[in-house]
Amino acid sequence: MRVLGIDCGTEYTGYGVVDLVSDDRNNDRLVCVICGAIKVSPREPMATRLSRISTGLQQLIAQHRPDRVAIEDVFYSANVKSALKLGQVRGVAMLAAASAGLDVAEYSPLSIKSAVVGYGRAEKHQVQQMVTRLLNLDEVPEPADAADALAIAICHLHTAATHERQSDLEKRVSTRAISSR
Amino acid sequence: MRVLGIDCGTEYTGYGVVDLVSDDRNNDRLVCVICGAIKVSPREPMATRLSRISTGLQQLIAQHRPDRVAIEDVFYSANVKSALKLGQVRGVAMLAAASAGLDVAEYSPLSIKSAVVGYGRAEKHQVQQMVTRLLNLDEVPEPADAADALAIAICHLHTAATHERQSDLEKRVSTRAISSR
Repeated sequence: MRVLGIDCGTEYTGYGVVDLVSDDRNNDRLVCVICGAIKVSPREPMATRLSRISTGLQQLIAQHRPDRVAIEDVFYSANVKSALKLGQVRGVAMLAAASAGLDVAEYSPLSIKSAVVGYGRAEKHQVQQMVTRLLNLDEVPEPADAADALAIAICHLHTAATHERQSDLEKRVSTRAISSR
Repeated sequence: MRVLGIDCGTEYTGYGVVDLVSDDRNNDRLVCVICGAIKVSPREPMATRLSRISTGLQQLIAQHRPDRVAIEDVFYSANVKSALKLGQVRGVAMLAAASAGLDVAEYSPLSIKSAVVGYGRAEKHQVQQMVTRLLNLDEVPEPADAADALAIAICHLHTAATHERQSDLEKRVSTRAISSR
């Protein structure tokens, strides 16, 4: 499974594509396909910025063909003005996914930190170091927005893998229940 | 000049296309070309809703070819969550304009009310009635979001007309200053 994580921002929008691959022994491994950030200038008109973010994300999706897009769900913002601006970028990111026929999964910062570090109140640098370790990278991905986007993708893959295992287990339990009748 | 006003909303996104036309005696007149609202269901996933709003606005722009898009600038929202959601719709609206090569003008609620009613603290129904009168319509446009979108378009046309008159005046004054030297 391949996931594109997007860390929406009004100046830097981070992205990270992560694969979940299984080896011969059926062990899961996370692989970083690409990561980076789309930078837009705050001096450009907002519509131009949104257009550049949209084009960048569309190109990424066309080139790397993820199965799913994951973004961070936001509950806190300094003020209404900044929440609106961040919302604008989120809208464009969600639209890029929907236009490519991809579902969008949203995760709270708490879920992302829990999935990556195992602790919902982890510090930013702990998340970045764990991303580096989980993806077996030589150094912390730069800029920070790229690392954050990878963390969102990893969160989705962990969550999806857990759901799959649960569903497998439920199937096996129900099969056993039927066969023991 | 033709303007598309958009009143962004998470359930109803109002739109209104207004022309500013001059008659033989050089008197300006406002004409409503089309108005309405794109309705999306809160039960649909947000990405699907944004996709439908985007498609609707793109079709409107392609069909009616406005010279400019105008939207409301928002400073107030009940909470961060609703500001983010509204921002998502605004992002999609701005992107639809930018993708068609159109500039986006933003106006505060105060500017819109001042331009339409002549009073920045006017009530919603006063704005709707003034829109009906200014566009010479038989009844108040429905839904309310359509009337609000028309108000935004009228605000832009009034503001643009005032700018044009000012710039004409400045040109005439400077021409006179040069010729009297």
